[in-house]
Amino acid sequence: MHTPGSSVAGYGLLLVVQIVFVIVFGFFTDYSKELLPKNGTSNGLEASHGAAEEKYLPKYPHFQDIHVMIFIGFAFLMTFLKRYGFSASGLNLLVGALVIQWAIIMRGCYEMEDGRIPLSLDNLIGADIAAAAVLISMGALLGRTTPMQLLIMGIFEIAIFAANEFLQLDLMKVADVGGSITVHAFGAYFGLAVSFVMRPSKENAKAGPMEGSSYSSDITAMIGTIFLWIFWPSFNSALVDGADQERAIINTYLSLAGATVTTFAISALVSHEKKFDMVHVQNSTLAGGVAVGSICNLMIHPFGALLVGVIAGVISVLGYRFLTPAMLSGGLRLSDTCGVNNLHGMPALLSAIFSAIYASMATSETYGSSLTTIFPAMAPVVNTTMGGHESEEFVIGGFGRTAAKQGAYQLLAILLTVLIAIVGGLFTGLVLKSPSVRQLEKDELHKDETYWETPSEASGATTNTAIPTVASSIS
Amino acid sequence: MHTPGSSVAGYGLLLVVQIVFVIVFGFFTDYSKELLPKNGTSNGLEASHGAAEEKYLPKYPHFQDIHVMIFIGFAFLMTFLKRYGFSASGLNLLVGALVIQWAIIMRGCYEMEDGRIPLSLDNLIGADIAAAAVLISMGALLGRTTPMQLLIMGIFEIAIFAANEFLQLDLMKVADVGGSITVHAFGAYFGLAVSFVMRPSKENAKAGPMEGSSYSSDITAMIGTIFLWIFWPSFNSALVDGADQERAIINTYLSLAGATVTTFAISALVSHEKKFDMVHVQNSTLAGGVAVGSICNLMIHPFGALLVGVIAGVISVLGYRFLTPAMLSGGLRLSDTCGVNNLHGMPALLSAIFSAIYASMATSETYGSSLTTIFPAMAPVVNTTMGGHESEEFVIGGFGRTAAKQGAYQLLAILLTVLIAIVGGLFTGLVLKSPSVRQLEKDELHKDETYWETPSEASGATTNTAIPTVASSIS
Amino acid sequence: MHTPGSSVAGYGLLLVVQIVFVIVFGFFTDYSKELLPKNGTSNGLEASHGAAEEKYLPKYPHFQDIHVMIFIGFAFLMTFLKRYGFSASGLNLLVGALVIQWAIIMRGCYEMEDGRIPLSLDNLIGADIAAAAVLISMGALLGRTTPMQLLIMGIFEIAIFAANEFLQLDLMKVADVGGSITVHAFGAYFGLAVSFVMRPSKENAKAGPMEGSSYSSDITAMIGTIFLWIFWPSFNSALVDGADQERAIINTYLSLAGATVTTFAISALVSHEKKFDMVHVQNSTLAGGVAVGSICNLMIHPFGALLVGVIAGVISVLGYRFLTPAMLSGGLRLSDTCGVNNLHGMPALLSAIFSAIYASMATSETYGSSLTTIFPAMAPVVNTTMGGHESEEFVIGGFGRTAAKQGAYQLLAILLTVLIAIVGGLFTGLVLKSPSVRQLEKDELHKDETYWETPSEASGATTNTAIPTVASSIS
Repeated sequence: MHTPGSSVAGYGLLLVVQIVFVIVFGFFTDYSKELLPKNGTSNGLEASHGAAEEKYLPKYPHFQDIHVMIFIGFAFLMTFLKRYGFSASGLNLLVGALVIQWAIIMRGCYEMEDGRIPLSLDNLIGADIAAAAVLISMGALLGRTTPMQLLIMGIFEIAIFAANEFLQLDLMKVADVGGSITVHAFGAYFGLAVSFVMRPSKENAKAGPMEGSSYSSDITAMIGTIFLWIFWPSFNSALVDGADQERAIINTYLSLAGATVTTFAISALVSHEKKFDMVHVQNSTLAGGVAVGSICNLMIHPFGALLVGVIAGVISVLGYRFLTPAMLSGGLRLSDTCGVNNLHGMPALLSAIFSAIYASMATSETYGSSLTTIFPAMAPVVNTTMGGHESEEFVIGGFGRTAAKQGAYQLLAILLTVLIAIVGGLFTGLVLKSPSVRQLEKDELHKDETYWETPSEASGATTNTAIPTVASSIS
Repeated sequence: MHTPGSSVAGYGLLLVVQIVFVIVFGFFTDYSKELLPKNGTSNGLEASHGAAEEKYLPKYPHFQDIHVMIFIGFAFLMTFLKRYGFSASGLNLLVGALVIQWAIIMRGCYEMEDGRIPLSLDNLIGADIAAAAVLISMGALLGRTTPMQLLIMGIFEIAIFAANEFLQLDLMKVADVGGSITVHAFGAYFGLAVSFVMRPSKENAKAGPMEGSSYSSDITAMIGTIFLWIFWPSFNSALVDGADQERAIINTYLSLAGATVTTFAISALVSHEKKFDMVHVQNSTLAGGVAVGSICNLMIHPFGALLVGVIAGVISVLGYRFLTPAMLSGGLRLSDTCGVNNLHGMPALLSAIFSAIYASMATSETYGSSLTTIFPAMAPVVNTTMGGHESEEFVIGGFGRTAAKQGAYQLLAILLTVLIAIVGGLFTGLVLKSPSVRQLEKDELHKDETYWETPSEASGATTNTAIPTVASSIS
Repeated sequence: MHTPGSSVAGYGLLLVVQIVFVIVFGFFTDYSKELLPKNGTSNGLEASHGAAEEKYLPKYPHFQDIHVMIFIGFAFLMTFLKRYGFSASGLNLLVGALVIQWAIIMRGCYEMEDGRIPLSLDNLIGADIAAAAVLISMGALLGRTTPMQLLIMGIFEIAIFAANEFLQLDLMKVADVGGSITVHAFGAYFGLAVSFVMRPSKENAKAGPMEGSSYSSDITAMIGTIFLWIFWPSFNSALVDGADQERAIINTYLSLAGATVTTFAISALVSHEKKFDMVHVQNSTLAGGVAVGSICNLMIHPFGALLVGVIAGVISVLGYRFLTPAMLSGGLRLSDTCGVNNLHGMPALLSAIFSAIYASMATSETYGSSLTTIFPAMAPVVNTTMGGHESEEFVIGGFGRTAAKQGAYQLLAILLTVLIAIVGGLFTGLVLKSPSVRQLEKDELHKDETYWETPSEASGATTNTAIPTVASSIS
């Protein structure tokens, strides 16, 4: 059943990939200019000004909040399976550590200067956000892949992610500060497409015996949920400044609160025994953060933020309750272990639709001078003879968009993103299912033992040694 | 035993409340003026100045630290019960999410501008702090209420909390930067008053079989304890700036350290077997943060901070060891599941007394120009003909207080707060005990199963499927 | 077996020590001058400037990140033992709370002003970093000491740590911003020296029945690992500013990522069954943070950072796999419960060697004007008749070092540190093993029951009461 030979080759290959990354970093990256020491001949005034701006690294707390979301939040959220906690917390770390390096390279391709990717804190923030897309996809497949398959998926996904992100944000100038389009929708539908290719045969399409939680694993998963819930305002506001940032924080905070209350109410109402379901609490409470992502810096007002959260909570719980089982048991046989369609997919579609609506209504009366900061392509076309710097930038469709046109672009963005994610995911799935890649056997699903040394003797000791010690201290 | 009908009504009502909140937010809230886009006609200089000040959101890291305390700290601290972890972590999230919305509205009533509550990051900080009071009360009742009762309590409590906070801080100008008076004392005695009304009949007054911890739940609870311990300096210093803030941080850090060492020593000394007691470690180590709350920005010096922490540790451990059992078994039959009287109540009284002492000794020699920032009512009475802006502000007793008078006001503040909390709690308890509200049966206490879908089959699988798998890998 | 009398004396002594600390703080500490209120006669301009600089406390987020590492990271990393979680999380808090107070005093001895230690946020950061050294040593001894022995060790270790830190950083002007030399190497070899003195007799040298993990304790330990992993960039960059700080963040981030991927690959390759080993994942993934510590602000470039991480991962996993068992089973009988030699010791040696290499190649072309900020002793000797302020500072070997000489000093620093740590550790070990100090019996190793009230009945209830409740709800 287990083929150590192929594993050795796999782990050797992983080591080779890491060494290749070291080399690529050597040739193609360096610190950004601001981080290189100033030599004496530089303009003193500029240097001191730069230093003052640099000194406090105002985005660093935001970065660390996101860092907690990626490496604690996603990791522990996925520990809900009763016997997959080593993989959830460990492979989240492994996949994350590999893809942040790869994301720095792939995303850097679009911002090279003199043949080098200039690194600063911004690249780390961008890499962490890119890793989120891969970890969302991992959620769709949780327990049904080998570690190698996850890593291969991460490599493909990041390359496609970086291209799509560049397309949407730089070329199409779409508003998506919280990444609902480029991260959540992309990651969810990429993962679901991979899951579709790797779907089990008809006779194996039922949930396996290990595909459930235990009492303690459900509580451990809440560590992930709550840290994601807490720091989501940082995720949505990391890429904006000033009043935009503060609005993004307030709106995300409110949307999450609205989604949470709604999740509990709907969860109890739709369950058989009118009880709360931990799956909903662990996931749908977060749907408010996704649903407000693309619009959190817009003038949606506190009312709009709460409303979006409430709607997201309803959609997400209903998705877990009815859609996910239907997708699995129907002809589609589409597994979605963590229900990423309900937490990330559908709320992201909702966010994109709302972003189109709000964009199409955006006026300079409402937004003042920040209109063209938020929607750069709505800036008037600059007369090139006047030499405006923006004229040199290429934007699909050109500058000078009307509000309605910007709204149309927002819809185009989500359509293209979902399309690219599905095509990319189907292709990646085929690679992962190719005969040269080891697949999990049916009895290896959703459990750590296949790839982890588990404390079997220790676990035996827990029942044979530790408990008796306790017992003897009772008697 | 279980009445699904009433539950459906309850959860439907919860949904209605959430929708009402959306509507109220629509009519009565908006972003604060600084967060609304500037239009072109605004003063450019002012705008750029405002932008510079806004740009870095210096309080945001403090806010996120508090956010972790409220939603991770309180949640996991309450997971110490062996079979109440879903409720502790989940209902903490639900209650928190509901009351932060309600707190924004209720607290906002006292700061409306043009019929609207202007929202900024400050309101989120204030809402999180208000939620702390409710979660403290929840600790007193842990395991003995339905989710609906908790939510109803939260609605009543926040309304009274906001009024009392306005009374103490705005009208009476009491010094309480760490909220020991307005948050900890209020939350603890409100919760205990509710608990008193809901006390069991004489024959049921003993601790039930589920009212204890398990080995793993005690470790999970330490996640809550330690995060609260770590971020308490942020809680106490969030509302002050500059040197005041740094003193608040240093004093809270030292007080917590002193309380922690003391807690371990006293815990072992007063226990039967001279061993450490996890209840004390999980709770009394934090008493130093409460006890220093009202005085943490005063000139108490490192010596005073440590001393307050040491005293708080002694009081808190002795409270857990002797007072809590006495309150339960005596004629009072007063349950306090988490011992909030020992962690929040008595240390807060201590803090208030110290604040009176320090206030009564405050001189402008010691405090310099910050005397009237810390104790605003000690500012000299402004001649109204001179047109000072402070003259328009209403302060109970007027400006120009002496130090002794300020000390007296500090004592009055804690007395009034405890009184208001107890009366409010008694009233709320009567509502929660009214026949129209579902009560827990005796065998439903302190366990998740009544309101949560628990992985019973999965739990069965853990013993029937998972362990044998492990066992077979041994043999 | 258990001698309550000696325990009472011990805990009484602990209380006395805490009270002595309060008194020492009263006589010898105060807030730093910036935190004392300004009186009216002060220079208004200076005051407002100071206030502006103070207002935002830019290091506070860094401090809180480190605070999480010390009190959550180390605590939960050490919960991996199956029946030592109360001690790991609780004693980490106790030892930490005691030694941060003591570190403020001991480190303050070298920076007194007018007979007082001036306290600011910097002292708290320094105290937390000093506590890390003690907690690393605790890791070497985990499960094999009494709480009292740990506290006595902390008292001795902090005194020696503070002296060595002053020697290396102030007198020898060694570059070590991430503390690999002064914290990690010192803590690891101090702890190993103590462990050597306390080594068991030959017949007891095997790992005991409790010296292993359980499935759930391994997952709990990952909380510690991942929080350490996330915030390590803050640890390494807390003491530097501006571009130096941002480079330290980027380099630490990359080194950790490289070490993590490498750890997984090597872990699987060297294990018997080609599976991942949780011990490696919990620890060696962090070796990249240690190995880059002394060089993280140097011009090592992203390439160098990744490479150092990869090497550290290899060394650390091989250390766990081959060296630790060899040290234990060989004639040395040297226990290292957490493997601190592999996580802290050897990677710190690596970091020191790299720091010597990079220092010896440092030129003003590469470093510009920051050369003498990073390596202060490389500043040219100031003509004393010119009255440069640096001329008054005493530096071993004097100013005006060449790059090669600075490299030699870096090597001297690690040699002296390891020597001082070992001698200090041997001496401390002798004290801990003296007849007047209670030792653990063989059957008391690695378990909480000896010093903690554990929920034995409750644990019984878990199997006897709780599970049947569940079972009955199934049937």
